Amino acid sequence: MQASMITNFPSRITMVGAGNVATHLALAFAEKGYIIQQVYSRTEQSARVLAEKTGASHTTDLGNLVSDSGLFILSVSDQALEEIIEKSSFGASLVVHTSGSMPMKVFRDKVINYGVLYPLQTFSKDRKVDFSTLPLCIEANTPANLEVLNHMCSLLSQKVVFMNSRKRLNLHLAAVIACNFSNHLYSLAEKVLKENNLSFDLLHPLITETAEKAVQYGPTQVQTGPAVRKDIKVIEKHIELLSFSPELQTIYDLLSKSISTNQE
Amino acid sequence: MQASMITNFPSRITMVGAGNVATHLALAFAEKGYIIQQVYSRTEQSARVLAEKTGASHTTDLGNLVSDSGLFILSVSDQALEEIIEKSSFGASLVVHTSGSMPMKVFRDKVINYGVLYPLQTFSKDRKVDFSTLPLCIEANTPANLEVLNHMCSLLSQKVVFMNSRKRLNLHLAAVIACNFSNHLYSLAEKVLKENNLSFDLLHPLITETAEKAVQYGPTQVQTGPAVRKDIKVIEKHIELLSFSPELQTIYDLLSKSISTNQE
Repeated sequence: MQASMITNFPSRITMVGAGNVATHLALAFAEKGYIIQQVYSRTEQSARVLAEKTGASHTTDLGNLVSDSGLFILSVSDQALEEIIEKSSFGASLVVHTSGSMPMKVFRDKVINYGVLYPLQTFSKDRKVDFSTLPLCIEANTPANLEVLNHMCSLLSQKVVFMNSRKRLNLHLAAVIACNFSNHLYSLAEKVLKENNLSFDLLHPLITETAEKAVQYGPTQVQTGPAVRKDIKVIEKHIELLSFSPELQTIYDLLSKSISTNQE
Repeated sequence: MQASMITNFPSRITMVGAGNVATHLALAFAEKGYIIQQVYSRTEQSARVLAEKTGASHTTDLGNLVSDSGLFILSVSDQALEEIIEKSSFGASLVVHTSGSMPMKVFRDKVINYGVLYPLQTFSKDRKVDFSTLPLCIEANTPANLEVLNHMCSLLSQKVVFMNSRKRLNLHLAAVIACNFSNHLYSLAEKVLKENNLSFDLLHPLITETAEKAVQYGPTQVQTGPAVRKDIKVIEKHIELLSFSPELQTIYDLLSKSISTNQE
């Protein structure tokens, strides 16, 4: 029966890790009525801060993990993940990690019930995140575990997506290109402005509008600038202005060529 | 006297060019009570469309430009600009161009009163632009002309900035790096997603949030991702996934190295 199935879904969650992703996930689940039972972090201070925010207990000792949380969310660096899986015992509880780049099979032969919950967003500690439109990419080792994850994640977001590890890794790669790299280009632009005693503030409306247009119309349709117009004169002027940084010249040249050829 | 000075400010504007920048500027000035007197474009259809939107007459013949507009706004490609200046006679009217990359001196010895009005934004024909926070970078050949431009532009935007041609060119360069290049990275990310049958929609929240965070906190402070963490394992996985495109591999490698070294 539907009702009794739902009562078997986890109501208590333990957070392993207390960084940005862990914090936002814990707060989002707590808001939906889940009990955050315990927070683990290597650093006592981080564990305590998140525990206080969510009414959980906290520990810095993997040996002290509670055994009766229905869900353990491992939200730690890729480097730490394997060691934590190795050192902890989760019994029959469902255990997920939140990494874009680690395959689900990292749990294999070490955990009984497992999966992945990858929220595709960039989290900052003090910035509120709207989970409702956030893609939550999930994967699990059994249909039953997938159903549990789907049920819980659907409470947070309208955009729960089933995705295998390979697709997730590619999605993570696309996110790095679209977002980490774009952000770095903002930094490089800031460098050019600083060289000329100009404020980065000037670019704010343009940066926001560029992102919004790409989202609304698709980036290829709205590409503008000298490279797509093949405006060699402007490109040459720009490369000359960048003579203070050979690295920036190389990046400018490479991306301009990439724009020209991709739009053909 | 202040009052009589203001009555000498132009009330009639002629648009030379009818593209996106011309359209949005003309509509913004018309909204503030300026009369758009005439629209010139090489193509009759473009001239007519903007003329109809603004209640102006239109022409495709530079010889037919009205002589009594107080302000001529030349909003055409860099390539066309010099030819238009050469072929037209503007009398004592104030003439400005809207290019980020053309120096003001393009008018020298050919026009009496001139300047530049460079709106730092990416314009699309059917997308409403909020001028009120838009940087309008202005420059003029005399203090009196600068005062006229400043008065008119201040009606449109709270962010009128006096800027010489060299700074404007550098600002344009920074805009290309921050926006044209970012948008291209969105396209490259879309390519990666397509290769894996994943929808670009998944990246929408992340793209918007990345832009907003950079604007709010400054891009260098909020840089995330494998390159800034120097997470070689993930970087290697990503480069392997990109083996379908050597160009993308080169871009990934170059930008990752640039992130790593710039954050040191």
